[in-house]
Amino acid sequence: MPRKTVIIGGGAAGLGSAGGVKASDPGADVVVYTQFEDVAYSPCGIPYVHGGEIDDFQKLFLAGKQAYVDAGIDVHYETEVTAIDTAAKTVTVAGEGTVSYDNLIIATGFEYADPGVPGGDLGGLYYVKNIRKAMEWDKVIAEAKRAVVVEAGPLGLEMVTALAHRGIETHLIDPNPYALSQMADPDIMAPVEESWRELGVHLHFNTTLEAFLGDDKGQVRAVKTSEGEIPADLVVVATHKTPNNKLAAAAGIKLGSTGGIIVDERMKTSAPNVWAAGDAVEIPHGLAGTPLQGLTGSHAYAQGKTAGANAGGGDRTYRAVYVPWGTPAGKWVIGGASFGEATATALGIPYVKGEAQGISRARYYPGVQPVRVKLLAEPGTLRLIGAQMIGGGEGIKERADFLAQAIRFGFTLHDLSTMENVYSPAIGALNEPIVVAATNGLENAKKG
Amino acid sequence: MPRKTVIIGGGAAGLGSAGGVKASDPGADVVVYTQFEDVAYSPCGIPYVHGGEIDDFQKLFLAGKQAYVDAGIDVHYETEVTAIDTAAKTVTVAGEGTVSYDNLIIATGFEYADPGVPGGDLGGLYYVKNIRKAMEWDKVIAEAKRAVVVEAGPLGLEMVTALAHRGIETHLIDPNPYALSQMADPDIMAPVEESWRELGVHLHFNTTLEAFLGDDKGQVRAVKTSEGEIPADLVVVATHKTPNNKLAAAAGIKLGSTGGIIVDERMKTSAPNVWAAGDAVEIPHGLAGTPLQGLTGSHAYAQGKTAGANAGGGDRTYRAVYVPWGTPAGKWVIGGASFGEATATALGIPYVKGEAQGISRARYYPGVQPVRVKLLAEPGTLRLIGAQMIGGGEGIKERADFLAQAIRFGFTLHDLSTMENVYSPAIGALNEPIVVAATNGLENAKKG
Repeated sequence: MPRKTVIIGGGAAGLGSAGGVKASDPGADVVVYTQFEDVAYSPCGIPYVHGGEIDDFQKLFLAGKQAYVDAGIDVHYETEVTAIDTAAKTVTVAGEGTVSYDNLIIATGFEYADPGVPGGDLGGLYYVKNIRKAMEWDKVIAEAKRAVVVEAGPLGLEMVTALAHRGIETHLIDPNPYALSQMADPDIMAPVEESWRELGVHLHFNTTLEAFLGDDKGQVRAVKTSEGEIPADLVVVATHKTPNNKLAAAAGIKLGSTGGIIVDERMKTSAPNVWAAGDAVEIPHGLAGTPLQGLTGSHAYAQGKTAGANAGGGDRTYRAVYVPWGTPAGKWVIGGASFGEATATALGIPYVKGEAQGISRARYYPGVQPVRVKLLAEPGTLRLIGAQMIGGGEGIKERADFLAQAIRFGFTLHDLSTMENVYSPAIGALNEPIVVAATNGLENAKKG
Repeated sequence: MPRKTVIIGGGAAGLGSAGGVKASDPGADVVVYTQFEDVAYSPCGIPYVHGGEIDDFQKLFLAGKQAYVDAGIDVHYETEVTAIDTAAKTVTVAGEGTVSYDNLIIATGFEYADPGVPGGDLGGLYYVKNIRKAMEWDKVIAEAKRAVVVEAGPLGLEMVTALAHRGIETHLIDPNPYALSQMADPDIMAPVEESWRELGVHLHFNTTLEAFLGDDKGQVRAVKTSEGEIPADLVVVATHKTPNNKLAAAAGIKLGSTGGIIVDERMKTSAPNVWAAGDAVEIPHGLAGTPLQGLTGSHAYAQGKTAGANAGGGDRTYRAVYVPWGTPAGKWVIGGASFGEATATALGIPYVKGEAQGISRARYYPGVQPVRVKLLAEPGTLRLIGAQMIGGGEGIKERADFLAQAIRFGFTLHDLSTMENVYSPAIGALNEPIVVAATNGLENAKKG
């Protein structure tokens, strides 16, 4: 008799898990429960449809529902799982009753942190998540004149740029002194903020949300902040991601300090035959060991494949993360790996710094873009521990991927200062910015 | 009294050397002899001015002559060094007589291999090298109707594309069965060749040059090949680079099997107080140990800095190379690191292969490009030993840089299959092509 794996959640982690199970155990019964009408679209593309860079929500769909049927994955749409019983190895499914499993994978994803202020039930508050809702909200955006984006995290960055591109008077509020302060350094963000101002965006830092204010129809009309009221007919609530851990918590599965489900290297939870993946779990940072939660769709998918492969009887590990990241921000692309100066300082981690302002192609080749690289290394060993970058876009993602591996494998500034690089005028400059930054870092290390 | 370093050659290696000496010994006397009218321009940009991508030769100049005066580097232009006496520590300079040195750096660069066929003294044979001549030749190109490019090496590739872009009927002849056969694999080059055909280029592989045929004015009128005559009013002789080693050989300095000057890790030659760098030397391949010669301007510059730093009393090493490379080719960009299948097979090196056809951004994001990655690994250890790629351009150079370091530091297919990657729709896809290729390589390794 085939073994049955139940998966709760139809996002990247859930579908990665489903594929992982089938890869290890092609005959397995795989059932996926999702609250939503769709699976297999890219939620990460939503801000770019709102911004007009992508012209149609339909383009975000990756595969039709039939593709899952063909792959032997039984997806139950608009279906809620209301409870897990790990002793009985069952889940309770609304409308289906008690369903038993041999293995369970929890891929319940994230929720936006509750802003915790009055007025949360007003109309006009947009939580970006579900593609069907995004299609409806796009019509609201088309009519909106003034918008406030709450919090300058990764989604806030994307939505600020999108709304500005749509010609809306856009205000960003954030309690921190600069944007993306949980990840990026202020010197990396300063040009981004400048480019937002050029787009007409109003930036309100060191500003706390106090309430959403409504009109007599129950629609938002303004946002009340520590620095005064900002009128708005649309508010994008882009608070940070928190793990959607309610089912797991009620089932007695162990949670970590971030609220994420604790998993081992094989994505196994504290409960027998129960695995978890994606935004619902926490994963240790490769260097600092601090738990991280709410990473990217790529992480969720890879974790899902690991959980699924193991649930299906295979043996696969998912290791601690060094978190390459990158995103467009205003007219720039920013990125990095591991942490920057702000986080290192907050964690009490000393560092030597090497910086360089380089270019993406030969100086004289059309389309050349700036590439600024900042490297952080451990004093003494000079091992790379973090990196941040800002540039026109060319090669930021690939450099971030590389630098994350350089951190993982303990490359030093010496190693990076002696690395070879492609030199071909149309695609790369004589001096690779990473090499120059590493060389400058060696100089700084000598000076002590 | 300041120590005096004489540098023969004003290219990337020579000027890199000059800077290296000054960095180690700011008070040093540094004299650079060059046969040419200029230093500090980018010869690598010449084909792109011919092709129209760059609109003016002036853009290729990096610095004015005054910049070298200001840096305390004494450049003697249009000045030939005719002999070296390593015992007396002197060089003979045309027009200057005998000049003594404390340290000598040989950076005499390359010459194109002599095609060794009749007609080599005809007009209309263009050897791409010197910017002043390139400016003259650009006028010839403007009048040319039919051109032949001899040999499909790196320069041949660039010149074929450039001439086709200028609307000239362009023929490429090469004795090998496909283009860039000394570096690239046939499956990587097939789309490139197809894109040349789309541009109207005539490809003649397995075709040997037999003679340049002239008219009664001493101008080339056709190229005679093993497969017949090809009429041409312009011939680009893009034969492979050979080390310009005549001075070194006459001085009794040791040469290697490629004809390149043998140097140690500090770029020191067999003669006391004599260093060498750039296309005149040979360097071992990091894995195979085979001597390589005629690498890129980036290599020449880095070798020059090493030679100069050591000549100036510093201590710097230049290590064996893993040769990341990349170039536009037809409508594609190709690249890689270390060697491909063709070279591995020729060297008798066994390998496991992993391939993937990936994309540079999210599938639905405007500007998305294909990225094909091929990885070669050592059977058993699964350590990466080579890589080749073809794509629309995005990220090829940066991936090549990364993969060269992955080879240098012994990354395995396991390591690459578990690497994290940036996922952000505008700049990177959910699945990094390197990761998919490594994962496929692991599957192939299992199959044995």
